[in-house]
Amino acid sequence: MARRQLHLNAFLMTIGHHESAWRFPESSLTGTWDVAHYRHLAQVAERGRFDSVFFGDGPSLQGDIRYRPVGRLDPTVLLPALAAATERIGLVATASTTYNEPYNLARRFATIDHVSAGRAGWNIVTTAGRDAARNFGLDDVPEHRHRYERAAEFVDVCRKLWDSWADDFLLGDKANGRFAYGDRIRPIAHEGRFFRVQGPLNVPRTPQGYPLLVQAGSSEDGRQFAARYAEAVFTAQQTLAEGQAFYADLKARVAAEGRDPGLVKILPGIVPVIGTTEAQARERADELARLQVPAYGLRQLASLTGIELTEADLDSPLPEVGDVSAVQGMQSRFALVTDLARRENLTVRQLLARLGGGRGHRTFVGTPEQIADTIEEWFGSGAADGFNIMPPLLPSGLEEFVDHVVPVLQRRGLFRTEYTGRTLRDHYGLPRPVNQFQPPTAVPTPVS
Amino acid sequence: MARRQLHLNAFLMTIGHHESAWRFPESSLTGTWDVAHYRHLAQVAERGRFDSVFFGDGPSLQGDIRYRPVGRLDPTVLLPALAAATERIGLVATASTTYNEPYNLARRFATIDHVSAGRAGWNIVTTAGRDAARNFGLDDVPEHRHRYERAAEFVDVCRKLWDSWADDFLLGDKANGRFAYGDRIRPIAHEGRFFRVQGPLNVPRTPQGYPLLVQAGSSEDGRQFAARYAEAVFTAQQTLAEGQAFYADLKARVAAEGRDPGLVKILPGIVPVIGTTEAQARERADELARLQVPAYGLRQLASLTGIELTEADLDSPLPEVGDVSAVQGMQSRFALVTDLARRENLTVRQLLARLGGGRGHRTFVGTPEQIADTIEEWFGSGAADGFNIMPPLLPSGLEEFVDHVVPVLQRRGLFRTEYTGRTLRDHYGLPRPVNQFQPPTAVPTPVS
Repeated sequence: MARRQLHLNAFLMTIGHHESAWRFPESSLTGTWDVAHYRHLAQVAERGRFDSVFFGDGPSLQGDIRYRPVGRLDPTVLLPALAAATERIGLVATASTTYNEPYNLARRFATIDHVSAGRAGWNIVTTAGRDAARNFGLDDVPEHRHRYERAAEFVDVCRKLWDSWADDFLLGDKANGRFAYGDRIRPIAHEGRFFRVQGPLNVPRTPQGYPLLVQAGSSEDGRQFAARYAEAVFTAQQTLAEGQAFYADLKARVAAEGRDPGLVKILPGIVPVIGTTEAQARERADELARLQVPAYGLRQLASLTGIELTEADLDSPLPEVGDVSAVQGMQSRFALVTDLARRENLTVRQLLARLGGGRGHRTFVGTPEQIADTIEEWFGSGAADGFNIMPPLLPSGLEEFVDHVVPVLQRRGLFRTEYTGRTLRDHYGLPRPVNQFQPPTAVPTPVS
Repeated sequence: MARRQLHLNAFLMTIGHHESAWRFPESSLTGTWDVAHYRHLAQVAERGRFDSVFFGDGPSLQGDIRYRPVGRLDPTVLLPALAAATERIGLVATASTTYNEPYNLARRFATIDHVSAGRAGWNIVTTAGRDAARNFGLDDVPEHRHRYERAAEFVDVCRKLWDSWADDFLLGDKANGRFAYGDRIRPIAHEGRFFRVQGPLNVPRTPQGYPLLVQAGSSEDGRQFAARYAEAVFTAQQTLAEGQAFYADLKARVAAEGRDPGLVKILPGIVPVIGTTEAQARERADELARLQVPAYGLRQLASLTGIELTEADLDSPLPEVGDVSAVQGMQSRFALVTDLARRENLTVRQLLARLGGGRGHRTFVGTPEQIADTIEEWFGSGAADGFNIMPPLLPSGLEEFVDHVVPVLQRRGLFRTEYTGRTLRDHYGLPRPVNQFQPPTAVPTPVS
């Protein structure tokens, strides 16, 4: 019997996930805003037979541009450009349920799924942060629980809209002037706490039925949301034990929701720092840390945790702070960062070095074989169904992973050598969802 | 001296503008939702050296799908896919100021301008129609004047956001870890009647500064809006005299706003029905009318004018109706349709035949030379700076226009034989806008 297969997603962010990436000689100063850069990355990931590429997102300028390229092109515009330059790889974009309307977003992702012939995924986020709130007429970010309640109804509305056209709506009778079955496209008449949406959508049901639903928040609210809606989950876990605990917890929650835990794929994020030898990999990691700008790291720390520090605090331990439940931002990331600092007794400077690459995601430093070993260990011991690969430098870090780590995983029988399916759901081994308004028992009508 | 050059925009809509298009043997039943169909159309238009292709839009399912393909892919997703398949042609999408937030839409069009290297245009609409309102929690469409007031502030906010990054923000000092000039990217701190937006945008200023601004409403409110904001105007005019009156009126309003009337291009829409002989063209026009489904036309008439009729009314004149100022939908289209019916004393059936191709836009029936004659007449007598070409069938109607009408216009020296510029503004002969926060007198700083 074939071995269980792991899944790989390439998380594409500017010219690399490490905040020092731009200072390396080979890094482009303008790649962050250049579609050709992302096209190349998507093609490299497809050459590596990755399941998907992925873009984070938020509707505000996050991070301090004095010290690093920040800002983001709209990923729902990038995906169709990348769809035109690739054939098989899945295309996942983040979009906010707090700062969009469900009709618009359901339609946008449905269109991406049509344009890419079934390769679209939506990473559903509720968007922490005051900066985003202030771009939409609010003084501060809506309360954490409220954002998740809105998100749940938002996705319910989207799924109704995506199912508002039956798959077999087309009649196509040219002789008699009858194009479609009128009763197979119907309003959804949704009336809820947050939304009133009449429908139907103005786009037919898509190749995948609807885009793959991805979720990446690991707070209590986030996990419950994932258990109910997600088909793939991106997560940040620092240790194998933490990864196993998260994996077991989430799969149990999925089962408790009456869903098959095998149909929700869990992918921790990792920052692979690769060297031909272990010493070379360590040297690369040290160089990345050496080039960090403390002022930038402190500002990032403040935005992840709410803890405001100055350069005078760099060689002290992280000060005591309040309880996670008071955090209205990214609760799980707050807990991860403060736990990491306590557990390893890190100074602020050491903590910034640990966060510089992946903002809380685990960094793996080593040879291709060593990185494959750690991947296999996590994959084989109940901590992961695959990995969200976050190269410190782009494109070079992705090229190295594809050229040197992927072949090791393939030799070990852990990863595909060719695509076997056409859609993103095919790659993740997930079925096309049944239309909630059209049970599969309906008699199919032939299209003339 | 070279002759004044006309501009051509290809209005792409499903498999043709004529409501009978889908019933022709060569028409695709699924082209409406197929990116390959639109890619082919954009490439044909680029071969014909068109200035741009254009998609209408609205966030609801408009029209009765029982009788014709309706519904629309999101054009802001189509444009980046088409950008990847073309090199020079401009790409214009419609988007609503009533059902979007300015931060999201400013960012989306900025991204399209980056991804297309300066070929993006935005057709600004306020979206008439109750169906759209009911997809966004409203019972009915907001009042006409209110929509235009919101649209004006919406565009003001977008232009501030598009200018929130100076063109020369990049410092790029890798040695010292200084990426950008922090003070050249600034909040906009907009506080208005409809919007509070802090900014800055999270996307740099774009190749065109900002996308070409297009407008297509010809009501009193619409004309004033166009005079203040538009760089290109699409309009529906049935007669040369009406076209001249509209052209003179709008150019005068542009001047009264203190803008150069030469920098606002006016493009009436035309439906060209082309034949090798005039008789053949007439035959094609008759066939298009013969294949109309009356039930569909009556429903369209109701949505254009609010006048609800049945098949029993087909051979009667259009009944008397109320005053245009009470219309909360497309006021100018209401006036055009009722004027046309009165002026030519048409029965309802005859009126439906006249509207079936262009929903109020003028149909030109004839040989390529005859169509070029009419284009030249309108262009040369103060009714147009160019034309919005609305082929009755797609792709065939666009292919015929490119292969047979464009060469006549080129021989007469009225239309380019090669592109001379790179951006959409280049094609329309318009300058890149100056950044409102960074006057051109600022001393440029070299990028290292």
